[in-house]
Order: sequence, then structure tokens, then C-alpha cells
Amino acid sequence: MPGAKRLLFALQLQICSTDYEGFMTKQRVLTGITTTGTPHLGNYVGAIRPAIAASQEENNQSFYFLADYHALIKCQDPEQVHQSTLEIAATWLALGLKTDNVVFYRQSDIHEIPELTWLLTCMTAKGLMNRAHAYKAAVDANRADGEDSDFGITMGLYSYPILMAADILMFNANKVPVGKDQVQHIEMARDIAQRFNHHYGEHFVLPEAVVDDHVAVLQGLDGRKMSKSYGNTIPLFLPEKQLKKHINKIKTNLLEPGEPKDPETSTVFQIWQAFATKDQTAEMRKAFEDGIAWGEAKKQLFELINGQIGEARERYNELLANPAQIEVELEKGAEKARAYAAPFIDKLRHAVGIRKIG
Amino acid sequence: MPGAKRLLFALQLQICSTDYEGFMTKQRVLTGITTTGTPHLGNYVGAIRPAIAASQEENNQSFYFLADYHALIKCQDPEQVHQSTLEIAATWLALGLKTDNVVFYRQSDIHEIPELTWLLTCMTAKGLMNRAHAYKAAVDANRADGEDSDFGITMGLYSYPILMAADILMFNANKVPVGKDQVQHIEMARDIAQRFNHHYGEHFVLPEAVVDDHVAVLQGLDGRKMSKSYGNTIPLFLPEKQLKKHINKIKTNLLEPGEPKDPETSTVFQIWQAFATKDQTAEMRKAFEDGIAWGEAKKQLFELINGQIGEARERYNELLANPAQIEVELEKGAEKARAYAAPFIDKLRHAVGIRKIG
Repeated sequence: MPGAKRLLFALQLQICSTDYEGFMTKQRVLTGITTTGTPHLGNYVGAIRPAIAASQEENNQSFYFLADYHALIKCQDPEQVHQSTLEIAATWLALGLKTDNVVFYRQSDIHEIPELTWLLTCMTAKGLMNRAHAYKAAVDANRADGEDSDFGITMGLYSYPILMAADILMFNANKVPVGKDQVQHIEMARDIAQRFNHHYGEHFVLPEAVVDDHVAVLQGLDGRKMSKSYGNTIPLFLPEKQLKKHINKIKTNLLEPGEPKDPETSTVFQIWQAFATKDQTAEMRKAFEDGIAWGEAKKQLFELINGQIGEARERYNELLANPAQIEVELEKGAEKARAYAAPFIDKLRHAVGIRKIG
Repeated sequence: MPGAKRLLFALQLQICSTDYEGFMTKQRVLTGITTTGTPHLGNYVGAIRPAIAASQEENNQSFYFLADYHALIKCQDPEQVHQSTLEIAATWLALGLKTDNVVFYRQSDIHEIPELTWLLTCMTAKGLMNRAHAYKAAVDANRADGEDSDFGITMGLYSYPILMAADILMFNANKVPVGKDQVQHIEMARDIAQRFNHHYGEHFVLPEAVVDDHVAVLQGLDGRKMSKSYGNTIPLFLPEKQLKKHINKIKTNLLEPGEPKDPETSTVFQIWQAFATKDQTAEMRKAFEDGIAWGEAKKQLFELINGQIGEARERYNELLANPAQIEVELEKGAEKARAYAAPFIDKLRHAVGIRKIG
């Protein structure tokens, strides 16, 4: 839905873990996607494609969840939350997520997560939340506007790091490779887990943040980072004609055909690189030096991307036409996720004193 | 367990309500008891006895819950949370709660409550929580000690009014008679409900606080309000001999037998009144004027109380000897509570955009 006000926030947590019984040695990859937007090429390159690739590695155990509880923090449009959940689920399935090998679930299907959130809430220092970047940024913006510090800030925005800690700790983890902006959340999950362990015994492995510097950041139509908030995105599964139109809108300079062009400062080239093989990249670099016309370069870029996502787009459209298939997958996923979450929450409840009587 | 560090906090909410479908016209009485203490005579007179009496009125629909999620805020001793849950459940059952007529449940058995808590968290202004009495008192105490404002304050203490709103709104209510110290919580539940309704349509009746000035407050051994925090309580189901001993410890003045005594300033008389009929109260007033000996007055007080709670104490001890009976009752209660909560949370989830696909 081009033009619609949507946002995809992909949180990718790559987790090397033993499970809470201590028997598993596989590396866990946990990826949460907030369900408030339509995926665009930037999300695909930076988050979805590497996550799906990671899921195919043998020593990974991959968890993917539609983070709809997180969506509620910033989106009060129920139709958008619902539509985005549908589109994001269809996107991941269409791109080849093998739901037999991975755990693909909707956060809100796992009622153990809000339960754990409350248990962790009682173990979280308020001072910790005061230091959260997202909250501090909102306070700073209010002060700059001469408003009360907490003006317009909800408890959702303030306390979501606890929900995120529950997302992570529910499936116990030790190493968590993330983007820089997510490091603080892992540190908070670690603090909270530590306090819980101190009071109630060793239940949580302390997650360690491992910063991944190799996350690909795609440029948008105007050359800035592709982001819904800049209105410069190319939605991933646009119909072919519209994809072509969008690619034609990528900002270029005024150099004529035949004039050599600098690949390093070109958004067209930057996006090309994100989809091309090494050889294709070398060829395009040569073509730039040889003065390829912008129109021709964009045509080739369209063909490259379209060739890579065309089949997935067909599957995507089929899924949107038969959304009940998606629901079936999500319900299977919830069952698999709850096979971990349910016995673990029982242990945690017992630890804090919530026990059957007799 | 005399001497054990325990606390009973009885929150009594008397709720005149239509249910969320709008079909019910019965008055709902919702009573939550935080499971961190052993019930004492003050809890009995001020909360338990009137609640059980209210449950026997025909136009009431009564909900009673063991507020174990609230217990976790102030009690990190799992054995105490568990033991208190057992003792409080046994107390209410022993005192004649008819579980066929009422809904008697353990808060933590209703996973819809933490789910609703998260939905409400996203609809709660942080500024609202900043104004909560319990939080402000903790901040003031920190400042008086020269500490950082939020020193030692957990997110549980800070955000529990949202959990309390979920407790109330889960079973939709309009009028809520409460003690003065609980009025703010009802106002907060109302604010949160209002904001939810504004964004997502009319789902919650706005609860109205109705202050009940007739809640009996019992004096403790030292003449101050009977309260665990003063260490001046008489546990409700002490063995007979210990009950007698405790009553003998009630503080009196030095007036000899035969000297007239002032009933108005006497704790013995104040407790007598809470258990006696009008006639019995008039007789004891006469006896005070006639100079009854303190020992004799205490003996009569013991007999009065023991006569009223003796049978319940036997049932209490039987229940503690067979705790599995209690669990059966709580599980039946959870089923009944969830018959309300489950379809309602489905409606609320749908309202915010959490929906099945297809």
C-alpha cells in the first residue's frame, strides 16, 4: 500500500542459547517484527533476508514473531495493526520461511509473555526505565517544546523494555547479536534477569549483546536511509509496474548518457550492490565508468530486483487471497512456541510463589 | 502464624454493574485480597465479614480473588506468597463463602488479566502514574532520606494501578464503593477506561467510586488501628488458648475492679462492639459503668469472639489438613471467572487490532 502511513520496525536478535533445561546447544535466532507497516526493500535487505538465511543454517534454532503487542504502543489504528500483521506474515512466508524448521508465531498468541512481563515488572527498578533511550528522547523533545517532561508519553512507551525482556527471556538466551540501537534493550533484559535470579534462583541465562556491524542499510529514493518516516521507501511487493515506477523515481544527478558516473555516490548503485553478486557488482561498476545512462541503469536494477522477488511476490499475492492459510501457520507456530513457554512459565510462577495448593 | 512478617491488604470493591454485554443488572461485589499475610480480626471485621455478608444478598453477583500478582510487588518470599494464598483461601472458605453462588478465584489463574494489563498500559498516560499516592509517598520518603527520588522503587510499585484497573475492568463495572484510600485507584481505572473507549469505541463502563464511610476499623492490642505493620494484631484463627492469651494482652488502664470504666476509650469495648449485638453492647456498656474487672471483660470478649469463629476455625484447620480441596474450589472459580474474561478479552483484542487472519 504505497503512501499509507506504515512503519516496519525489525528487531533482529540473534541468540546463541542453551534452552532453559540446559540441554540444547543450537544457536537461537529470534526476530521480532512490529506489525505497524508494510515491508519495504530496506527491511528486506537489512532484516528479513538475513534472518531467513540464518533460519536455513543447521546449527540455528530460529524464532520469528509478529510483535503485535509492541505495535500497540505506537499505533492506535486497529485496521492498520491487523492489515500489517497479515502483510508481514504473508511476506515472511512468501520469502521462503520454512515453518516446519522454525518457530513462527504471533506474540499475542503466547499469553505466557504478558504473564512473564508482570513477573519481570516486579523485578525492574524504575530507575532503569528512566534511562531508556526512547523515553529520554521523548522527554527531551517535550522539554525543547516547553512541555511537561512526560507530556503525551504513555506507559507503553515507558515500560516496553520490560515486554522486550520478556520476549527474549521467555526463550532463554545467552548471546544476542543486535544493531547498536538495540544494545540497551539487551542490557536491560540482562539487568532484569539478574535481579530475578538473585531473588528467586538461577532461572535465566544472562543475555549478552553482540553488536553486528554488518547490517546492510539501504538508501531510499532520496538517498537518505530508506525509512517510512522519510517517505522514501520502495515497498517490497509492489506490482511490477509500480516497482518500475518507484525505481525510476530514485534521485540521480544530471550527468548525460556517455558521461562517466561515480558509483560510490549513487543510490542506484548502492541498491544494486545489495541485490547483485560480486560479478554483477563489478560489471555495473564498469558500466558506470563507461557512462551508462541513468534510465538504463534503473532498468537493469528493476530487472535484477524483480527477478529476485518476482516469484515471492506471486506467493505473497496468493497468500493474501487465501489468508486462512496464514492463520493456520501462525496457530501451528503458537503451539510450538508455547511448548517452550508454557513449562517455563510454570517453573517461574513456582519460583515466585504462585503454586497449586495441596 | 503469630509473629511471622505478614500483611493482609484487603481491597474491597463493591461494584454495581451491568456485564459487558449489557444484560446483567445485578450488583457486583469484587473483593481482592493480597496474598502476603495471615488474616487477623481487623481484616475479618473490616473486609471479610461484610464481603461474605454481601455475597449472600440476592441482587449481588460476587467476585472474590486472591491477588497474588499484587503480592509479588511487596513480597519476594515465595514461601510466604504461597502459604498466605493457602491461608487466605482457607479462611474465606471456612467463613462460609458459598462458592456455588460466587466467583472465587486466584488472580494468576486468569491469564486474561495480564493481557488486559498490557492493552491498558498502552492507553495509560505516564503522568497519571506519577500522581499515584503510593508512588509519591515512596518518592517523598526517598527525598527525606536524601536519596534519589526513585531509589528502591520497582516498576511493580509504580505501575500496579494499571493492574488494578485490569482487575476491575476485566469484569466491567459502573459503581465502585471503596474506602477513601482506594478512591484514586478507581479514578485511575476510570481515566484509563475512558482513553481506551475514546480510541477503540465504548467497551468499558466507567467505574464510579462511591466512598463507604461505614467500614469498621478495629483497634489492635495497643489501641492503634489493628495492622500488621504495627505488630498489634490478633490473628483470626489462632488456637483457642492463644486467642485467649492475645486478648489478655489488650492494653487497658489501671482502674481496679469496681471502679467505673469509660467504654469510649477502651479497646476491649471497641472490639466487643464489633462482634456484639446491640443488646450485648448495651449490657457491656452497663457492666463498664458498674466497674467490671478488666480480666472479666476480656474473658467475656474471648467467649464472644470464640463463639462466633470457633466453628469456622475447625473448618479452617480441616481445610489446611486437606489443601487439595481448596485447589479444587479455586480451579472451579477460575473456570467461572474465565467464562467472563475470555470472551471479553477476545472483544478487546479485536478492538485494538489483534485478530485472527482470514
